[in-house]
Amino acid sequence: MTQSSYHYDVIVIGAGHAGTEAAAAAARLGAKTALLTTNLDTVGQMSCNPAIGGVAKGQIVREVDALGGLMGKAIDATGIQFRLLNKRKGPAMHSPRAQADKKAYQFYVKHQMELQPNLDLRQETVIDLLTETVEGVTKVTGVSVTGDAQFIAPAVILTTGTFLKAIMHTGESQTAGGRAGEGTTTGISGSLNRLGFEVERFKTGTPARLNAKSIDFSSLELQPGDDEPQPFSFLTESLASLEQLPCYIAHTNDDVHRLIRANLDRAPMYSGQINSTGPRYCPSIEDKVVRFADKTSHQLFLEPEGRRTEEVYVNGISTSLPRDVQDRMFSMIAGLENAQIMRYGYAVEYDFCPPTQLWPHMESKRVNGLFLAGQINGTTGYEEAAGQGLIAGLNAARKVAGKDPWVPTRDQAYIGVLVDDLVTAGTDEPYRMFTSRAEYRLLLRQDNADRRLTPIADELGLIDADRRSAFQAKQKQIDVANELLKTARFENTPGDVYLRRNDVDWDQVRSHVPGLNLIDSEAARQVVYDIKYEGYINRQKMEVEKHHRLAEKKIPVAFDYNAIGPLRHEAREKLSRVRPLNLDQAKRISGVTPADLALVLTHLEGRKK
Amino acid sequence: MTQSSYHYDVIVIGAGHAGTEAAAAAARLGAKTALLTTNLDTVGQMSCNPAIGGVAKGQIVREVDALGGLMGKAIDATGIQFRLLNKRKGPAMHSPRAQADKKAYQFYVKHQMELQPNLDLRQETVIDLLTETVEGVTKVTGVSVTGDAQFIAPAVILTTGTFLKAIMHTGESQTAGGRAGEGTTTGISGSLNRLGFEVERFKTGTPARLNAKSIDFSSLELQPGDDEPQPFSFLTESLASLEQLPCYIAHTNDDVHRLIRANLDRAPMYSGQINSTGPRYCPSIEDKVVRFADKTSHQLFLEPEGRRTEEVYVNGISTSLPRDVQDRMFSMIAGLENAQIMRYGYAVEYDFCPPTQLWPHMESKRVNGLFLAGQINGTTGYEEAAGQGLIAGLNAARKVAGKDPWVPTRDQAYIGVLVDDLVTAGTDEPYRMFTSRAEYRLLLRQDNADRRLTPIADELGLIDADRRSAFQAKQKQIDVANELLKTARFENTPGDVYLRRNDVDWDQVRSHVPGLNLIDSEAARQVVYDIKYEGYINRQKMEVEKHHRLAEKKIPVAFDYNAIGPLRHEAREKLSRVRPLNLDQAKRISGVTPADLALVLTHLEGRKK
Ligand SMILES: Cc1cc2nc3c(=O)[nH]c(=O)nc-3n(C[C@H](O)[C@H](O)[C@H](O)COP(=O)(O)OP(=O)(O)OC[C@H]3O[C@@H](n4cnc5c(N)ncnc54)[C@H](O)[C@@H]3O)c2cc1C
Ligand SMILES: Cc1cc2nc3c(=O)[nH]c(=O)nc-3n(C[C@H](O)[C@H](O)[C@H](O)COP(=O)(O)OP(=O)(O)OC[C@H]3O[C@@H](n4cnc5c(N)ncnc54)[C@H](O)[C@@H]3O)c2cc1C
Repeated sequence: MTQSSYHYDVIVIGAGHAGTEAAAAAARLGAKTALLTTNLDTVGQMSCNPAIGGVAKGQIVREVDALGGLMGKAIDATGIQFRLLNKRKGPAMHSPRAQADKKAYQFYVKHQMELQPNLDLRQETVIDLLTETVEGVTKVTGVSVTGDAQFIAPAVILTTGTFLKAIMHTGESQTAGGRAGEGTTTGISGSLNRLGFEVERFKTGTPARLNAKSIDFSSLELQPGDDEPQPFSFLTESLASLEQLPCYIAHTNDDVHRLIRANLDRAPMYSGQINSTGPRYCPSIEDKVVRFADKTSHQLFLEPEGRRTEEVYVNGISTSLPRDVQDRMFSMIAGLENAQIMRYGYAVEYDFCPPTQLWPHMESKRVNGLFLAGQINGTTGYEEAAGQGLIAGLNAARKVAGKDPWVPTRDQAYIGVLVDDLVTAGTDEPYRMFTSRAEYRLLLRQDNADRRLTPIADELGLIDADRRSAFQAKQKQIDVANELLKTARFENTPGDVYLRRNDVDWDQVRSHVPGLNLIDSEAARQVVYDIKYEGYINRQKMEVEKHHRLAEKKIPVAFDYNAIGPLRHEAREKLSRVRPLNLDQAKRISGVTPADLALVLTHLEGRKK
Repeated sequence: MTQSSYHYDVIVIGAGHAGTEAAAAAARLGAKTALLTTNLDTVGQMSCNPAIGGVAKGQIVREVDALGGLMGKAIDATGIQFRLLNKRKGPAMHSPRAQADKKAYQFYVKHQMELQPNLDLRQETVIDLLTETVEGVTKVTGVSVTGDAQFIAPAVILTTGTFLKAIMHTGESQTAGGRAGEGTTTGISGSLNRLGFEVERFKTGTPARLNAKSIDFSSLELQPGDDEPQPFSFLTESLASLEQLPCYIAHTNDDVHRLIRANLDRAPMYSGQINSTGPRYCPSIEDKVVRFADKTSHQLFLEPEGRRTEEVYVNGISTSLPRDVQDRMFSMIAGLENAQIMRYGYAVEYDFCPPTQLWPHMESKRVNGLFLAGQINGTTGYEEAAGQGLIAGLNAARKVAGKDPWVPTRDQAYIGVLVDDLVTAGTDEPYRMFTSRAEYRLLLRQDNADRRLTPIADELGLIDADRRSAFQAKQKQIDVANELLKTARFENTPGDVYLRRNDVDWDQVRSHVPGLNLIDSEAARQVVYDIKYEGYINRQKMEVEKHHRLAEKKIPVAFDYNAIGPLRHEAREKLSRVRPLNLDQAKRISGVTPADLALVLTHLEGRKK
């Protein structure tokens, strides 16, 4: 055999939500990038619900977009229903969410991959990671693929999602595969073991899909989209002309719950067939029935999977119960009595790599040049995967170019919270983002993601001229509006002070300052929030300052905690594992006390002298 | 475990081109039908070239449409370039062909399956055929699927295409799977063996897909669609507003051929790694180079795979050469020097069931109620699969309803030629349709498929009211036009006689008979052809008559050829295998002589007395 070799700067394995963002980011930075994936027809495929965004997840999508990523544009181009969640709450809680035309979404993403300069999208199955060890330092050199070929590169990003040693469960029945109808990946788990990575198992699940023609929608509650759908991407001008599709709400009932309870011994999660952990906050229906035993009904959202399909996703009834139970379950639900199941729900167990094995920029500590992103890091969700993918792709390209990593901080982005949580605390259940994970929610609003991140993205080389000029135009508008406000007088107070009052809104000031009519609504929103929330924002910024000061106390990568004699065993062990990059990160490691930190600090300062 | 059972009239296994037509036909006839397929995301997927129709194949699509099938509407809805081939030849040779948006095509077909009343489309993997044998007669009772469930039905249609024990080859490398990125089906091959079916192996191949951004189109020859694209479906009014995409033509050269020759020992077809037969008329590039050694160049057609993808199919360079050879091959072709391969070409070997084991209506002789259709019968091509699928679905539903089979004859349809060829002669290479296989080409024109078949389809219950009224309206127009022509006078001759003249065309007669201006072009075409070709058509009809008379001599299904003492061994053996239904079919069995037939006839007539 003649082995074929292909040379790249960055190789990305797996074209899911993490892999596509990773590959696009690396390529945008100029790295010659290969995106290798088992099947070109599943690029960007949504394994589970046909929706992007949601609480805290929507914020991540806006950040991915602000950083020049794909996800926002993709959902704007292929969404079928848009809703801004938590509209009645303050702006920190506003979270965009949209239903996608699932197939249109994935083929849109694939097309972007095809068009991206510097990027080769190829159908390849990776079977092994190639490494070399020189003087005790192991570094990645590439990957091998089926068909006797190698892809060689100094940086490799692993984004294989739920596919590592994956087993699907529906009741007692088990099948190998990371997604129904697809296979599993075993070679890479072996490579990770061989390289000394800890590998653990998680599980996640998905509900059945029904055929719309068999659903009685007249007995369900309608859930329409927003009257004024808001786009995800800062570059999408408007979605006003979009024809939105409705969702519907159904309800489980006591009969359904009784049926489930009677069959718990056949549920893989309760029979012992599955013993890995799933996401507690996103429970299967059998979980809900057990954990919320007093609830007599749960809501189910019927979400169309696209414009040109009758498949309907039943959000809220994820399950791995046997198919006969799934059949009976639906037949007991009003509106779904005759529902025809097109695909059964199932759970999937898969290998992941506990993410404390990574630096914050997603490179593994163990193998130089090997980055991991997405569900393989123990997270769940398309958005979390996309955010990590972008960071990994960016930093893989920077590494190849000899540049230092860049990672957003916790006060800069939800993505910063995400990567910091993962590498500092790890996770003992599939990790998803919540607003409660962010300390500085008022800073990390969905509406200001561009102001937080786009200028940095520009410096990093992540964005193109279109985005730069769109951003500058908006910033200009904000500046002009602030200027106009400051010079205008209302009841003898300057406009900006006047606007701060609770009983005054933008329309009122605008009606007196003609120039403000030229300010578009997005810029106006920024001006208003800046002024109205100034007090809160400033307080959060002061908090941030404290952390930044602590973060300035860097800890060298090779720092030896054993050298600190008096350090408690637990602290020594945890600090050695996480290897925090600075005192602020060290402080966030659970089980590390202020006294431990003080010892570390003293030692660090002693070293400096 | 509790086994789930689902009851149906007809079960179809595999939602490819055969399975979707089969399921839709059965459901249209009112049979409660289940269409079970491994992955709902690959329903109607085109495994290979993104095109429907072509010489003789286009005629089949028109027939499928005339019989109320899907394929014509699907390609009309999703085509990106339409061409009528052989336009310069006579109408018997006119063959429509269209490029499809591959993904749009398959999801269109899937959606039709979802919408079809009486049809349940479900994601299920069939692992075994269920049968029972009573008094020596074996009949099918259903299928079992993964996940411990059974589907029960008195009729089962097997349409698993290239997936039975499939192995893919690219050079020395072999992978199990019926299509790149997908798996293989083993259980069913085992069932077929157990039930006593002969199972043999064929192979087929596919070329690489390239990324358009890496192709230099400026150095290639443009191939646009027709100015007036002609629809496939008799129900599609017009495609005039369709925006068509261009194809391009490239050429291989001596360097490429030399490279291939130098690597023949690494080509699975020449190295002995593959020893099953592929389609000789659709050779791989390595085949072409060997068999047409004096040709210094072969044409390659670059066909876009869709509107929203850069993937380009390279028609004419199907190959299973190793990937390094594929890489170098393209780099030597003008316009493709920098072409980036997205998927490599490969060959696939798979199990098929020699089709002489079937009755003409596609039911197996061995197992009552088990029908086989599509590539599993040793054919190749989407259209051939669709035609068989429709016949199988129709007859499965008829069987369940206690009705006799219906099969078109060789003078009624290319589909008649297809099924008769298969069951009477079998095939020793993957069978595709050619015009030369049809004796009555002038009867079996693409333009008159509706007149040949739609009235019968109506009787059979295959068509809906829309098609019925569209057909009747057209027929009405033809009648009116004929009437007008007969009564009109040109130079003292009746219009129909006048039109027969070589130097007279429709426009000329129309300009004198105002009523004819109300006749639309499709009806006019029929009138003109009927008149112009009357002589030839009548001669073919007389031929047909002879065969029909012979076909009236039925042979009982249980006829025992051993009872005819003097019958030659070869004839006895072949007749016993094929079990022709009448003397006309018997006559078409190769190796059966007129003398043999005479013996059979004598014996049959003796029996009657
Ligand atoms: C059944 C199921 C239910 C889920 N339910 C939820 C839910 O309720 N809520 C939620 O937020 N998230 C859910 N998820 C998770 C969500 O789908 C993932 O978080 C997200 O898709 C992860 O993105 P990723 O890019 O990390 O991986 P994926 O999207 O899984 O992509 C991985 C890619 O890697 C490719 N690949 C794998 N192995 C190889 C190889 N050896 N060589 C080349 N390519 C390879 C695959 O083909 C695939 O394209 C669910 C997932 C599954 C499977
Ligand atoms: C690599 C390749 C190259 C080809 N090249 C050409 C060519 O050059 N020219 C040409 O005319 N034709 C070509 N073909 C053939 C063409 O694709 C087929 O003729 C056509 O698709 C056959 O249709 P079908 O319905 O019989 O099977 P398919 O379209 O193959 O459909 C079979 C279906 O059965 C399903 N299935 C399989 N096993 C199971 C199971 N156990 N349970 C449930 N479902 C199951 C599969 O998922 C699939 O949906 C090629 C095919 C392949 C794979």
